[in-house]
Amino acid sequence: MQPSDDAGGGPDAQAAIEGACTRFLHWHGRRRPADLLADIPADVVPDRYGDGGVVVELEGEVAELLGADATVFLPSGTMAQQAALRVHADRRGRRTVVFHPACHLEANEGRAYERLHGLVGRPTGSPERLLTLDDLDGVAEPVAALVLELPQRDLGGQLPDWDDLLAQVEWARRSGAAAHLDGARLWECTPFYGRGLAEIAGLFDTVYVSFYKLLGGLAGCCLAGPRDIVAEVREWRTRHGGTLFALWPYAASALAGLRLRLPRVPVYAAHAKAIADAVRDLPGVAVVPDPPQTPMLHLLLDTGAEQFRAAALDLAREQGVWTWPRSQPTGSPHVQRVELTVGDATLGFEPGEVRDILRRLAAG
Amino acid sequence: MQPSDDAGGGPDAQAAIEGACTRFLHWHGRRRPADLLADIPADVVPDRYGDGGVVVELEGEVAELLGADATVFLPSGTMAQQAALRVHADRRGRRTVVFHPACHLEANEGRAYERLHGLVGRPTGSPERLLTLDDLDGVAEPVAALVLELPQRDLGGQLPDWDDLLAQVEWARRSGAAAHLDGARLWECTPFYGRGLAEIAGLFDTVYVSFYKLLGGLAGCCLAGPRDIVAEVREWRTRHGGTLFALWPYAASALAGLRLRLPRVPVYAAHAKAIADAVRDLPGVAVVPDPPQTPMLHLLLDTGAEQFRAAALDLAREQGVWTWPRSQPTGSPHVQRVELTVGDATLGFEPGEVRDILRRLAAG
Repeated sequence: MQPSDDAGGGPDAQAAIEGACTRFLHWHGRRRPADLLADIPADVVPDRYGDGGVVVELEGEVAELLGADATVFLPSGTMAQQAALRVHADRRGRRTVVFHPACHLEANEGRAYERLHGLVGRPTGSPERLLTLDDLDGVAEPVAALVLELPQRDLGGQLPDWDDLLAQVEWARRSGAAAHLDGARLWECTPFYGRGLAEIAGLFDTVYVSFYKLLGGLAGCCLAGPRDIVAEVREWRTRHGGTLFALWPYAASALAGLRLRLPRVPVYAAHAKAIADAVRDLPGVAVVPDPPQTPMLHLLLDTGAEQFRAAALDLAREQGVWTWPRSQPTGSPHVQRVELTVGDATLGFEPGEVRDILRRLAAG
Repeated sequence: MQPSDDAGGGPDAQAAIEGACTRFLHWHGRRRPADLLADIPADVVPDRYGDGGVVVELEGEVAELLGADATVFLPSGTMAQQAALRVHADRRGRRTVVFHPACHLEANEGRAYERLHGLVGRPTGSPERLLTLDDLDGVAEPVAALVLELPQRDLGGQLPDWDDLLAQVEWARRSGAAAHLDGARLWECTPFYGRGLAEIAGLFDTVYVSFYKLLGGLAGCCLAGPRDIVAEVREWRTRHGGTLFALWPYAASALAGLRLRLPRVPVYAAHAKAIADAVRDLPGVAVVPDPPQTPMLHLLLDTGAEQFRAAALDLAREQGVWTWPRSQPTGSPHVQRVELTVGDATLGFEPGEVRDILRRLAAG
């Protein structure tokens, strides 16, 4: 065994440690390429440039789940959301899109909405909390679309109260703006609201849902909405270069993940709550949000980055349990953040065991 | 057996006929999803958002083959070429891109170069023949990039003479324009030129090559060029929504196809020539180009669309040989066009047998 001050060395050393682990705390754990491909049925019907086969089957099943008139499969949410916002903007002759500062469009896409589509982003509200109606009331200019992310990933999967959500969507309607849902993790929202997917999705003009987060597919997403808007999004999918010759591997994997894991969402969510109950009184550990509102939660640990990493790798070496190779920084040098998505692998850990793990990681 | 005047009925009837066929004339024949997935090795190393694993392995192998400084894998040529042209245009402060009227950018991408990137397309020359230096000399405005497609798919895979090619690239250099190669089928050019891939690719500033045409991969392509340009193309890949969570299924399939089929290109090309030799004296059959310059050729048949379809479906029912479910129109209502890419499946047909098939299809 290597000494703990090695901190895992380079990527190869880390991969070796991870490779020797037998249990995984986060998400669905280690799934090798062969496992992921095994989700694709041998008799899957292929598409050709997105037409036909399992792509259409997936689109139909998602439309049904969301109560949408139409859906289109796209290889990425980056593509789907830009396309939807472009359509909303063109139809309104407006360019401004309002979103939370942590919005994926703002933070992770190289400002593509601006560079490719000539849209103007208006980050609204504060990165540390959810968007509020007050924030929106502070917007004076005409708006093409309001983007809401449910749940807000960067805030540990927080969700606004239902009435608050209704009020914000109503603000969009009043403003003549489209209401667009970044529902990458929409699947995770139903236990908190006690409402079905279709009721939540039905508030919005367009809805983007992802298949490779909680559902564990290879990649890809759907954009749902009225028939005419979805038809136009298909045109933008072609322009973006997303109407691939063969989309069926992603679509088939997505459909398998949807059918397998969507029914498990309440179980994941309950386990997230049980874990929060077990760890919230640990010294140096804070749960965000507390209680968790979805299968996702963030944990703030009173430790340093190197200290955390050394502890996580020690744990992996000694117990064969893989947690997180690195923590994320926060505003404080003494506090590190990790994200736990409760998935198939996490269900294999009793809350008490997670408590022991976090005590060790927080102690450094 | 159904009567031939049924013409195959709807898509289901056609699929049933195709499903009962045992031999396929075009390309690599029928490959079911399970066959395509079987090309992916069980121990493939995955990427994460395009980083690492088989994606990097493929990029390295293609860079080596093309003699390029750098390469990047992208899910589609639509994305790759727009990105490359945008980079060339931004660096020159110019917007105009010159290409053949049948260029994929012009014909198949919903004018994305214009709508997403603000580029101005200038189709140059005539759709019925290759671009010439004379055509280019007629361009008076400053040009950001010249796009050449080798071979020109819409013209049956025609290629300019080497000296002509050099002169056109030289025109780009003289004009201060980048020379970009649409090399979707670059792999097919080496027998005609008697030169290696690196020598052909080396003429250009940037080169796009595809993996799902002759090479038979699932989808995807590489863009090759200088390190700084490829790095910027990577940024555009993200903006286009092409930096997918998992690109490894496509990259692994591409790598398998590259290794398996690139060495077969001379065999495919020789067989295309042998087929042309066997069919060119048939009444009502013309070969384009004659002789074929690559593994691809077009066949012009003196027949009508419905007549062709009925004959092709009859042949399929009677002999279990699948050719083309439909022909393409030409300027003449009495002439139909089909495209033959000589691939693994085609190699199973002696030229004399192809002659018999075409005699039947041309006779209607």
